[in-house]
Amino acid sequence: MNVLTTIAQLREVVKTAKYNRQSIGLVPTMGYLHEGHLTLAAHARSENELVIMSIFVNPTQFGPNEDFESYPRDLPRDTELAKSAGVDYIFAPSVEEMYPHDGGITIRAGRQAHILCGATRPGHFDGVLQVVAKLFNLVQPDRAYFGQKDAQQVAIIQTMVRDYNFPVTIRVVPVIREEDGLAKSSRNIYLSAEERSQAPAIQQGLQLAKRELLESGSVESAISLAKKIIHDNTDGHVDYLMILSYPDLQEVDDQTDQIVVAAAVHIGETRLIDNLIFSLKGEIIHV
Amino acid sequence: MNVLTTIAQLREVVKTAKYNRQSIGLVPTMGYLHEGHLTLAAHARSENELVIMSIFVNPTQFGPNEDFESYPRDLPRDTELAKSAGVDYIFAPSVEEMYPHDGGITIRAGRQAHILCGATRPGHFDGVLQVVAKLFNLVQPDRAYFGQKDAQQVAIIQTMVRDYNFPVTIRVVPVIREEDGLAKSSRNIYLSAEERSQAPAIQQGLQLAKRELLESGSVESAISLAKKIIHDNTDGHVDYLMILSYPDLQEVDDQTDQIVVAAAVHIGETRLIDNLIFSLKGEIIHV
Repeated sequence: MNVLTTIAQLREVVKTAKYNRQSIGLVPTMGYLHEGHLTLAAHARSENELVIMSIFVNPTQFGPNEDFESYPRDLPRDTELAKSAGVDYIFAPSVEEMYPHDGGITIRAGRQAHILCGATRPGHFDGVLQVVAKLFNLVQPDRAYFGQKDAQQVAIIQTMVRDYNFPVTIRVVPVIREEDGLAKSSRNIYLSAEERSQAPAIQQGLQLAKRELLESGSVESAISLAKKIIHDNTDGHVDYLMILSYPDLQEVDDQTDQIVVAAAVHIGETRLIDNLIFSLKGEIIHV
Repeated sequence: MNVLTTIAQLREVVKTAKYNRQSIGLVPTMGYLHEGHLTLAAHARSENELVIMSIFVNPTQFGPNEDFESYPRDLPRDTELAKSAGVDYIFAPSVEEMYPHDGGITIRAGRQAHILCGATRPGHFDGVLQVVAKLFNLVQPDRAYFGQKDAQQVAIIQTMVRDYNFPVTIRVVPVIREEDGLAKSSRNIYLSAEERSQAPAIQQGLQLAKRELLESGSVESAISLAKKIIHDNTDGHVDYLMILSYPDLQEVDDQTDQIVVAAAVHIGETRLIDNLIFSLKGEIIHV
C-alpha cells in the first residue's frame, strides 16, 4: 500500500494515471474506517482503474467546540483495511500540507446548509466544501464516492459540482443497514439493549413517511405519521424530521421530483441520523 | 473558427483533447477584443497545442449600478480577431447556459478584494472567482492567461488557484505600453491631447516608486515621491497609489518578497490604472 503524504507525491501519481488514460476513483474520508467507508472503496474499485482514498481529519469543518483534537485516528489500521478493500493509494496529508496559506478566499454553502444538521453546526458545510474542492482539484477523479447516510453533505457537494462544473461524477452509495433496518453507524455501539431494540423505528418512520407521501401527496401528513411511529416505539426525542426537495433541500412544491426524507433522533444519549431519497415520479435515484 | 455555445460541446472538445494528450491554453475574456486580449492569445498559441478563448460577459461580476447591459459586444468581429491570433475554439455561452441553477453556494474573495479597485466594487471579485472557477473546471486548461494590467484580479485568481489547488498554471502577461510608457487601454481614446500628454506621468511615478523602494526600503517615501510626480505633471486626481505584497495584497513587512505598486488616477473624466510587479530580492516575476 502506498501512503502519500505530500501534494507533490499525489500530483505525480495523478499525472501518471492521466497520461496512461487510467480512470480515477476518489474516496474522501476522515479515516478511522468502518464498513461504510469500505463499501465506498469497493464501489470505487469496481468502476475505476485507480482508486485513491484520502484520509484527512479536516479542521475547517469542525466548530470551535467540536471534537477536532479528539477525533479518532489510526492510520496503520486504516492502511490495512483500505488495502484489503482494493485501494491503490492513500493520501494522508498533514494539516500544514493542506493549508499552508490562508489567502482569505472562502467557499460558502447557501440555504442548503441552514437546516437539518447544519442548523446546529454553523460553518460545518463550508469547511466540507473547502476540503472537497481541494481534493477534487488535487486528485482530478472521474468519480468520487460518498455515502447517502450523510444526505445533506452529499446534496451540498452535488450542488457545488453542478453549479461550479467540477468534472467529476458523484456516486452516492446507499445506506448500509442492519437486518432490522437500522442504519449502520459507529455510534450504534453506544445504544443499550433496550435502546437498540427501539432504534429501527426511525427507519420504519421514514418508510411510512415515504409511502404516505407517494399515496396522499401530503408532506404534513407524512411527517406526522412518521413522528408518531418514532414517538410510540421509542423513548427518543426527534431533533428533526423533514421532507425536502433533493438536492436543493427546499420546501416541496409542484415542481419537485426528487425527495429526501431525513431524520435525526436522540435515543438516550445517542444521536442517530437516517434518510431516504426517492423520486415522486417513480424512479429510484440511487441504487 | 469553431464557436462553441454549449457546455456539452465544450466538454466534448476538452475530452477529445485530453484523450489525445493535447495541452490546453485558456484565454478568458469578456469579448470586444483589443490588442491586450490578442497578446494573451498569442502567448497561449505559442505554449499549447489547443487554444480555447472564452467570450462571456459575466453578469455576476457587475454591480447593480454597473454597465452589464451596455457592455460592448461584437461576437462576429471577435471571432475574426481570435482566428487571426491562432485561437482554435471560442466558447461563447449564454448567461442561461452558464447559470441555469442557483444552489446558493458562493466563492468569496477575502481581504485582497477590499482595497484598490475592490474598495468601490463590492462583490466584483466574488463574481470573477465564480466564473473563473467554472471556466477552469469546464476547460481543464494546462495554462490560463491573464493580463497584468488587472493586477488585483490576477492576484486574487492566483490565490484561489494556490489555496484551492486548481491544476492550472496561471500565466501573467505583462502590460502592453505605448512608446512613452502609458499602459494601453481602450479608455485612452477618451483622453484629450493635453490629457494624453500628461498620462505617461502615471507610469513614471510607479517607476520612481519602485526605484525608491529598492534603494531606501521606505514604502512611505516611495509613495509620496510617486504621488508628487503625478501631481506635478498632470491635472489628475489620484484615486489610490499603493505598495503592497503580491499576491496577498497586504502591507509590506520584513517577510515580503514580491511587490505590487498599483495606481488608479483620474485624468479629466478618464480613470486610468497601471501597476508594476517586482521582487525585492531582485528577481523579476513576470516576463
